[in-house]
Amino acid sequence: MGSTLTIGSFLFDYLYQKGATHAFGIPGDFALPTFRWLDKSPMELITLTHEPSVGFAADGYARVNGLGVACVTYCVGGLNMLNSVACAYAEKSPLIVISGGPSANDRQADPLLHHKVRTFDTQRRIYEEVTCANTVLLDVHTAAAEIIRVVDTVLEQCRPGYIEVPFDIVDMPIEAPVIPNRPPAVSDAENLEACIEDVVATINRAKNPVIIADVELHRHNLADLAIGIARKFNIPIASTLLSKSVISEQNPLYIGVYSGGFSEPETQRLVEESDCLIMLGAFLTDMFLGLNTAKISRKNTILANTEKMSVGLHRYDQVVFKDFLEKLLYSNVEKRGTFNNPLSFPDDDSLPVIDEKPITVEAFFSLLGGRMPDDATVVCDTGDSLLGAIGLRTSQRKNFLSDAYYLSMGFAVPASIGAMAANPGARTIVIAGDGAFQMTGIELSTIAKEKMNPIVFVINNDGYGTQRHIIDGPFNNIHPWDYPRMCDLLRYGDGYRVTTMQELDDAIHKALASKNMALVEVVVPRDDSSRSLRRLGEELGKLRNAEKKGQGE
Amino acid sequence: MGSTLTIGSFLFDYLYQKGATHAFGIPGDFALPTFRWLDKSPMELITLTHEPSVGFAADGYARVNGLGVACVTYCVGGLNMLNSVACAYAEKSPLIVISGGPSANDRQADPLLHHKVRTFDTQRRIYEEVTCANTVLLDVHTAAAEIIRVVDTVLEQCRPGYIEVPFDIVDMPIEAPVIPNRPPAVSDAENLEACIEDVVATINRAKNPVIIADVELHRHNLADLAIGIARKFNIPIASTLLSKSVISEQNPLYIGVYSGGFSEPETQRLVEESDCLIMLGAFLTDMFLGLNTAKISRKNTILANTEKMSVGLHRYDQVVFKDFLEKLLYSNVEKRGTFNNPLSFPDDDSLPVIDEKPITVEAFFSLLGGRMPDDATVVCDTGDSLLGAIGLRTSQRKNFLSDAYYLSMGFAVPASIGAMAANPGARTIVIAGDGAFQMTGIELSTIAKEKMNPIVFVINNDGYGTQRHIIDGPFNNIHPWDYPRMCDLLRYGDGYRVTTMQELDDAIHKALASKNMALVEVVVPRDDSSRSLRRLGEELGKLRNAEKKGQGE
Repeated sequence: MGSTLTIGSFLFDYLYQKGATHAFGIPGDFALPTFRWLDKSPMELITLTHEPSVGFAADGYARVNGLGVACVTYCVGGLNMLNSVACAYAEKSPLIVISGGPSANDRQADPLLHHKVRTFDTQRRIYEEVTCANTVLLDVHTAAAEIIRVVDTVLEQCRPGYIEVPFDIVDMPIEAPVIPNRPPAVSDAENLEACIEDVVATINRAKNPVIIADVELHRHNLADLAIGIARKFNIPIASTLLSKSVISEQNPLYIGVYSGGFSEPETQRLVEESDCLIMLGAFLTDMFLGLNTAKISRKNTILANTEKMSVGLHRYDQVVFKDFLEKLLYSNVEKRGTFNNPLSFPDDDSLPVIDEKPITVEAFFSLLGGRMPDDATVVCDTGDSLLGAIGLRTSQRKNFLSDAYYLSMGFAVPASIGAMAANPGARTIVIAGDGAFQMTGIELSTIAKEKMNPIVFVINNDGYGTQRHIIDGPFNNIHPWDYPRMCDLLRYGDGYRVTTMQELDDAIHKALASKNMALVEVVVPRDDSSRSLRRLGEELGKLRNAEKKGQGE
Repeated sequence: MGSTLTIGSFLFDYLYQKGATHAFGIPGDFALPTFRWLDKSPMELITLTHEPSVGFAADGYARVNGLGVACVTYCVGGLNMLNSVACAYAEKSPLIVISGGPSANDRQADPLLHHKVRTFDTQRRIYEEVTCANTVLLDVHTAAAEIIRVVDTVLEQCRPGYIEVPFDIVDMPIEAPVIPNRPPAVSDAENLEACIEDVVATINRAKNPVIIADVELHRHNLADLAIGIARKFNIPIASTLLSKSVISEQNPLYIGVYSGGFSEPETQRLVEESDCLIMLGAFLTDMFLGLNTAKISRKNTILANTEKMSVGLHRYDQVVFKDFLEKLLYSNVEKRGTFNNPLSFPDDDSLPVIDEKPITVEAFFSLLGGRMPDDATVVCDTGDSLLGAIGLRTSQRKNFLSDAYYLSMGFAVPASIGAMAANPGARTIVIAGDGAFQMTGIELSTIAKEKMNPIVFVINNDGYGTQRHIIDGPFNNIHPWDYPRMCDLLRYGDGYRVTTMQELDDAIHKALASKNMALVEVVVPRDDSSRSLRRLGEELGKLRNAEKKGQGE
């Protein structure tokens, strides 16, 4: 009877079968029986120090691997992870939240059970706001079907899902469930044909079409189709901050990260002067639009994603994104001449001067881009670490991670743990500002426990630097840590503090040559910023002046 | 025009006037204009490193001061603080959450604004689950009235409230609002009289009545009335884990912390053998009941709190708690003879042996109780740090803090920041297990920034010790830090590691003699636990055996 199926064993077997070989979590009393099943399952569990990090780690894993699992306890665990799951919802990451919960008996008697907030349903109701499917496994007869429903919906929609497991039900035996066949979504054939005709005619009429390859291509495994379209018809292709690395940045058609006024000027010009923007898998977020500094006309835009399909101002219903891409690839769009790319992949000649001068954010990214290995994974935190990374070229796909739309500080260190678990072969580089690092950088403890070896750069500009450019005040100050000493606290890794370009280059070389984790504090001037942040300031300034003129000032 | 009233200036002036002289927060772009007003206000702002800690700090402040304020940004800040606010809701702490938010214009255009999750209302809807009042200040004409409504409701109900401040509205000028008179709740006179008659008769019939003074007495400033009743009629009085220190523990009528099977045996006997339990301001939580090991009969119980009034199995509606206490104090309950208290306040003779032997949890608390100053504030984290503290006597009121019902690990270090801000004169002692300390202990960074000087004990039993007593597995292991090195990381405080009673005593003496912060790692055996945790195990064992017999096994 060792192989009797229980709710607990089925849950983790099903997740494993769907591709999640790792789970991330922190136990708690209501969750301990579930953790016992997780421990017995083929999945590998990585425990972290604090629940907000559990969510980011599982999200980072989901972004690389295609399905992530976060396992926590009731309320004190689940509610503490909510922000990370909200991030995964906003940025479409397929993440399963498993929470322990009170027993059915406890719920009926309705006592004031510890960890309870308002009602026993409080946590599920809250999670309803940040998930595409949720369930509480109160009924042993439907539990397996409910698990299947939530997991399959998460995989289909690439949004988080929530499974609450009462502690007394997880050990109960169940029959092997029938796994239903979920029929894939089907396009309306006429709509699809009309849509493709319209798109082909629009592209063929255009002088300089440009593809924007956005994050849904990555999440739904459709990037190859989009790149195929670009290559077949010689159409230049840009990414966004959220999708950066969805296409190899060494691809000769690649023209950089588009993000309105944050973009490199050449990228911004190519995108905004295009008379036919083909936006594939795009969210039109304000970050995509460079906080609304983008100059894009909807009339010149083809928008195709999993939820919407429009050509200029027309709209086509019931056209499946994948069908659209496949049809377009084999359509009679006319092939253009060879694209003369003004944005070349940087070579060694473009390295900054390495001397005893202070480090700037721009020079840091430029040097790092020149030194880092081709297959490195880069995980960036919110703030100037992200804006600076716009110009950082990575050569392989799936190796740039950031929460570039939701912009929650503290994402990078925990998310890198998930990324390293999903792709242990790649050297992983983490870049976080000092403010973001103070939020979750202590999660290097988990990196030490798991003997992982990222190179972690803390860009120290003495506080919340990006906010200083908006409104400054004492609230942007933080306590100055002696960052390299964190290696002593954790008894792990090599700590460096660098203040000159020469020291930075030495530290990068040493860190790359070593198999240890490296923590590099990069001291930059307090008022320094990336090109992108400065450009944005200028663009916003122009916009404001134009508004004032419009108001007759 | 320097004194023009704006929404921002009114908000913080009103909070200050209601007694909040400090606020706790972390800024973010949508919240920066609000932080600018906070900076200009008479309130003092303490910024922390991570939002979960902001909530606990403001909660700790609210518990000591009577009103707390936490100021964060939209979603990435607010959702990251949800668990701490849920804790304040569950344990009735008057905490105002102020969140920045998108502008009214942004909400109408409905773009994908960064930080947004599902809809612009997502954060408010989520907060509805953990607050007693909430508002989004979208209308300049009602903004002041809405602020008053939320703050006053919070003060009345002692539960958190939520105020979302769109970033473009906070600078808008407003007229000075009329502050409405909130009429206090009124008792039904007949009900009140009948209830008191019933209570007096019940108490006078009883042989050995006992008062349980619980947390609402503290939150609603009614502790003096309850203590007055005990003293006037010579009725012994117990506290609970949540209300510990609501009464001076040197009071000759004080019989200890009651918590079912967790209690000291003598306390448990006195409470459970009483034929008339007078529970004042009590929540009947499972922790109060010692995870349901308590043996209390409803028939012998008088329950009076802000929501309910019952005598045995009768119930009285519309009886205001304060009226009840006042009437009872001046009622003709018969005065008992002098109470012969079997639980004396420990003196120097009760100190444990100080030698070179390893430290146990029990000996730690016993020694600390003997050494700490009378006016010390003690802040305990969840786990055996809390259960061990059941036997730790504190002499003054309001100087024991813990989240003894919601039991969220990581409460103590950030909550101590709030407690120290509210009561800077008292030396503050923080006790956390190693697992809890790894969650939020890095907030010593804020303690360093604010130059506070707590004595922080990290009880190191090498992992999630309390959980090991329930179900053990590799998920209860954590990475072993070199805790005293955190002082190096933060460039602040004195670090100690102690493994023997002599070393512990030396460290306590040095820490008390110094004006610096001290971080003391107390190494205890991995399988050690407090008396309370062991007793609970025995009680639960007895219960289970009784159940099995009941089932005919």
